[in-house]
Amino acid sequence: MRIDIITVLPELLTSPFEASILKRAIDKGHVEIHLHNLRDYTTNNYKTVDDYQFGGGAGMVMMIEPIDKCISGLKAERSYDEVIYMTPDGETLNQGIANQLSLKRNLIILCGHYKGVDQRVRDIFVTKEISIGDYVLSGGELGAAVLCDSIIRLIPGVLNDETSALTDSFQDDLLAPPVYTRPSDYNGHKVPEILLSGNFPKIEKWREEQAYKRTKERRPDLLDE
Amino acid sequence: MRIDIITVLPELLTSPFEASILKRAIDKGHVEIHLHNLRDYTTNNYKTVDDYQFGGGAGMVMMIEPIDKCISGLKAERSYDEVIYMTPDGETLNQGIANQLSLKRNLIILCGHYKGVDQRVRDIFVTKEISIGDYVLSGGELGAAVLCDSIIRLIPGVLNDETSALTDSFQDDLLAPPVYTRPSDYNGHKVPEILLSGNFPKIEKWREEQAYKRTKERRPDLLDE
Repeated sequence: MRIDIITVLPELLTSPFEASILKRAIDKGHVEIHLHNLRDYTTNNYKTVDDYQFGGGAGMVMMIEPIDKCISGLKAERSYDEVIYMTPDGETLNQGIANQLSLKRNLIILCGHYKGVDQRVRDIFVTKEISIGDYVLSGGELGAAVLCDSIIRLIPGVLNDETSALTDSFQDDLLAPPVYTRPSDYNGHKVPEILLSGNFPKIEKWREEQAYKRTKERRPDLLDE
Repeated sequence: MRIDIITVLPELLTSPFEASILKRAIDKGHVEIHLHNLRDYTTNNYKTVDDYQFGGGAGMVMMIEPIDKCISGLKAERSYDEVIYMTPDGETLNQGIANQLSLKRNLIILCGHYKGVDQRVRDIFVTKEISIGDYVLSGGELGAAVLCDSIIRLIPGVLNDETSALTDSFQDDLLAPPVYTRPSDYNGHKVPEILLSGNFPKIEKWREEQAYKRTKERRPDLLDE
């Protein structure tokens, strides 16, 4: 998979891809990440990428021309499955969307900033608008990093133990059960005895019950779907 | 405001705080971010922070002892309003939670990794569990960065133009209206004429209608609340 990320702040995106699972996925060749600094696609001397919004009001708007240049240049080199715009009014990211996107070959992710991009960018170039949640961030960069993380860890071979992703929360519409590790007694706080019993069918049953109970208490909406 | 972030991957969190609005907020003294490497709180020679889970199964679990040491050490120095654990089965972050947390003085954010932390950490130390959305990430670090961004930009004085945050999506349960900037005609794609009219009361009315229309089309659930 290849992901091209278009941003005015590429420096914000360096560390998320230089550590942990994302770095390993890149090193192993499962994914290529290309960061594009939108300022490299400006034609004016000041490398301006934003301007005041028509009709007045607080906040700057990202201009269409540099974005057009960048996206059109990329599309001339290869075909893309989706041009994704990170925006709080997009479709809310969930595990199903992450699963679908993990099967794609080439993705462009456009990070908004300031008041967002000129609406015509969305009308003409963007094929999918994604929000990572109902809250406002300074820009689309952290959203892009979150989206990449949620997708890349699902690519076969990225996680060491493939069953690990399958037992995560949401993959079966249930939250994960509680987990415990050593010591079995920490200052009087003890691990549930069943987990120390060695009776694996019973442990499995306990985990299922706990997952269901936790989901019912915390996220009954997941059980309704 | 002071935020202490406990993580096994502090290097993952460097760039989000070294650019843009978060960096300015730190430079101006609106917020202090302290990253704590959990490995510095281990007592074994291998600096191990995780171990196999009791009862078997894929994925490692973060041990209680180093986390206890780190949190207890911080609490001995000052009082904290919340000890937040980033986890997919936590309360889903929204703008209301971000607004509330932006009024606090001292926060601890604990980032989970692998299969998460020993349940006893959650039972004993954690006062609030937050998820940034219904998807699984490699760890809590990106979630912590997202949470910090959503909170910090709301602290008075952080954004240059305070009205800018107030007209963002979600602050009034409506999505933001479309925005446009120059040129008014881009290869035949024109800006809506109303925005060029200079009739500000009419522009305001148009924006309200557009915000309502977009919300009704994309997120009718926001209107029901």
